[in-house]
Amino acid sequence: MGFMLLKSESPHGARAGELVTPHGMVPTPVFMPVGSQATVKTLAPDDLRAIGAKMVLANNYHLYLRPGIEVIEKMGGLHKFMGWDGAILTDSGGYQVFSLSPLRRITDEGVSFRSHIDGREHFLSPELAVQYQESLGADVIMVLDECPPHDESEPEVREAVDRTHRWAEKCRKAHRRAGQALYAIVKGGVYPELRKQSAEYLTALDFEGYAIGGLSIGEPKSATLSMLETTVPLLPENKPRYLMGVGSPEDIVEGVARGIDMFDCALPTRTARNGALLTWEGRRNIDNAVFTEMEAPLMPGCNCYTCRSFSAAYLHHLFKAKELLAYRLATIHNLSFMQSLMERIRNAVLDGTFAEFRKEFRARYKPTDEAVRVTQKQKWLKSKRG
Amino acid sequence: MGFMLLKSESPHGARAGELVTPHGMVPTPVFMPVGSQATVKTLAPDDLRAIGAKMVLANNYHLYLRPGIEVIEKMGGLHKFMGWDGAILTDSGGYQVFSLSPLRRITDEGVSFRSHIDGREHFLSPELAVQYQESLGADVIMVLDECPPHDESEPEVREAVDRTHRWAEKCRKAHRRAGQALYAIVKGGVYPELRKQSAEYLTALDFEGYAIGGLSIGEPKSATLSMLETTVPLLPENKPRYLMGVGSPEDIVEGVARGIDMFDCALPTRTARNGALLTWEGRRNIDNAVFTEMEAPLMPGCNCYTCRSFSAAYLHHLFKAKELLAYRLATIHNLSFMQSLMERIRNAVLDGTFAEFRKEFRARYKPTDEAVRVTQKQKWLKSKRG
Repeated sequence: MGFMLLKSESPHGARAGELVTPHGMVPTPVFMPVGSQATVKTLAPDDLRAIGAKMVLANNYHLYLRPGIEVIEKMGGLHKFMGWDGAILTDSGGYQVFSLSPLRRITDEGVSFRSHIDGREHFLSPELAVQYQESLGADVIMVLDECPPHDESEPEVREAVDRTHRWAEKCRKAHRRAGQALYAIVKGGVYPELRKQSAEYLTALDFEGYAIGGLSIGEPKSATLSMLETTVPLLPENKPRYLMGVGSPEDIVEGVARGIDMFDCALPTRTARNGALLTWEGRRNIDNAVFTEMEAPLMPGCNCYTCRSFSAAYLHHLFKAKELLAYRLATIHNLSFMQSLMERIRNAVLDGTFAEFRKEFRARYKPTDEAVRVTQKQKWLKSKRG
Repeated sequence: MGFMLLKSESPHGARAGELVTPHGMVPTPVFMPVGSQATVKTLAPDDLRAIGAKMVLANNYHLYLRPGIEVIEKMGGLHKFMGWDGAILTDSGGYQVFSLSPLRRITDEGVSFRSHIDGREHFLSPELAVQYQESLGADVIMVLDECPPHDESEPEVREAVDRTHRWAEKCRKAHRRAGQALYAIVKGGVYPELRKQSAEYLTALDFEGYAIGGLSIGEPKSATLSMLETTVPLLPENKPRYLMGVGSPEDIVEGVARGIDMFDCALPTRTARNGALLTWEGRRNIDNAVFTEMEAPLMPGCNCYTCRSFSAAYLHHLFKAKELLAYRLATIHNLSFMQSLMERIRNAVLDGTFAEFRKEFRARYKPTDEAVRVTQKQKWLKSKRG
């Protein structure tokens, strides 16, 4: 178990490695599809295998509320429950408590919150977050963190950072399960001094991996990248670095360029269900009339099941008719695209050509306007809070 | 091309045969999953192959409205468009015009109707129904029929029967496509005399197959079976007999017992999406709390992907969480069940043990109460009419 660094472009630049888990080796940089409720939305485990995914994300908050930790434990753990024999990382649920629950009360002991499903009150502590994630049995688990909004003032962010540090220590003490890695989460919002303190504090505690949390949650993209540049150099070189909740293809390339090894984001799967399909030129909206009679696949040359089997016209028809097959086929394509992206990135790092890859990618890939992207994320968060 | 009768239990009883189509041999009795909009809801073609389906249903009305016949023709025909290389039967759309369109005007020339999607007016004639179905390129196509409600009076049903006969002749004259079979539809509601006249009239025109239409649309089940007993003996022995829109497992067993070779129905796929899963004991509602911690598959011994891969508890969780994967896994199970049912029926007929099979099936399978069934269908039709 552990992390093996195979190649680094430069001390704080792009790198390629291998994450060894009880459920197989995961080549890094890796993008983890999001399966919060013990399913990557629309996909079965054999779809994920066909795509080439090696590691997926699940969520302690969602699974605690439904079906309940005890149910999954009785069913033999999360891998068996969802029929997935690859690696799994569970988030502690900190972010979900703070973004989905309509009401919260935070103390040093933990956080009281109301379920977004039925409004009932629950309590999550650092110790319980670890205990639940041990019961789920993921390969990598996360400490509980406090997640203030991106526009919170420095004193309030500092308070949250300090509490997250105390919680991280409690998590580390509570963690028992052999073979399961526990990662810390570096916080500090958009405040460089806080980010530095957090990285140094947590590094001294010697976790098995380091996540960077509280980014890409509405702050300007320049701030995200600047925080990465502040934080990454302070993290140990021989440990995996995980940028939580990122991201879009363009953000991932920039994250890798700044030394990140692991990513997760609902974007490729969520936008797939909205008909926004990823190509090397950027996102394409399959609802567009241009696809009505397009006999070619959505992305010629793509080796995914969707592009190998169907015309863009058929995909367009399924979306227009709101047929459920549409959402699965689009998800298969977007996750296959992410898988190809990560493979190209990794090969470029190993070949020492990542800088060229990045340049070519940026020249070709037209990202969605940032304002649109942020608005979409905020609308989504708001709808979840609603 | 054609139909080969392999074995008959008795002159008008259960039989087993082979339907030879340009897209392979279809063993009969056969249940055809419904894929009105060029997709069996939630499933991709490789799911259908894994289930063992050999023939599916698509619908001229739905495909004419969306994406349009011309689009599918340009994309190389319906098989290529939907990626399905097995056999396809298209219904003419008669039933849909009469059940889905909010407004209709019928003459001997055809029927004017409004789209249930956008309210625009369209016109369908017997000749156009054939022309469109030739363009789609299904293996078997249907004549256009007028479809009065099940409680229509005899004079009105007679008028519809006579018009359907005139339309059938027009369809026969218009039909050109080699290798494609055209089936007639015997009508007559719940009136034995009309059913007899219709069977005799259409048999004299020598179609390649005979459907029985206008049954199981709300009339009592005893009337459905009695109409079958009246009609089937008047149909040619060497032609396939297709009971349209039927049905549930229990109705199919009774249909086979009365000499039917082909069935189609949205019930197994629609109820799957509502969480009603088929077992040899009857339907089970996966939402039921009894499944919360059931580690066994929904139907132990079932060889479908769903039962081989997942516990009933996982399926229960997916339905509770409204995860899209739920609907696909449930559909795979229900269609696999239908496939097993048809295989068992056919083997029993070939072995000369169908009577025993039927008896055992009826002793074990607890059908849903008929009143519930009819109410569900009427509610559904009403919701479609909106």
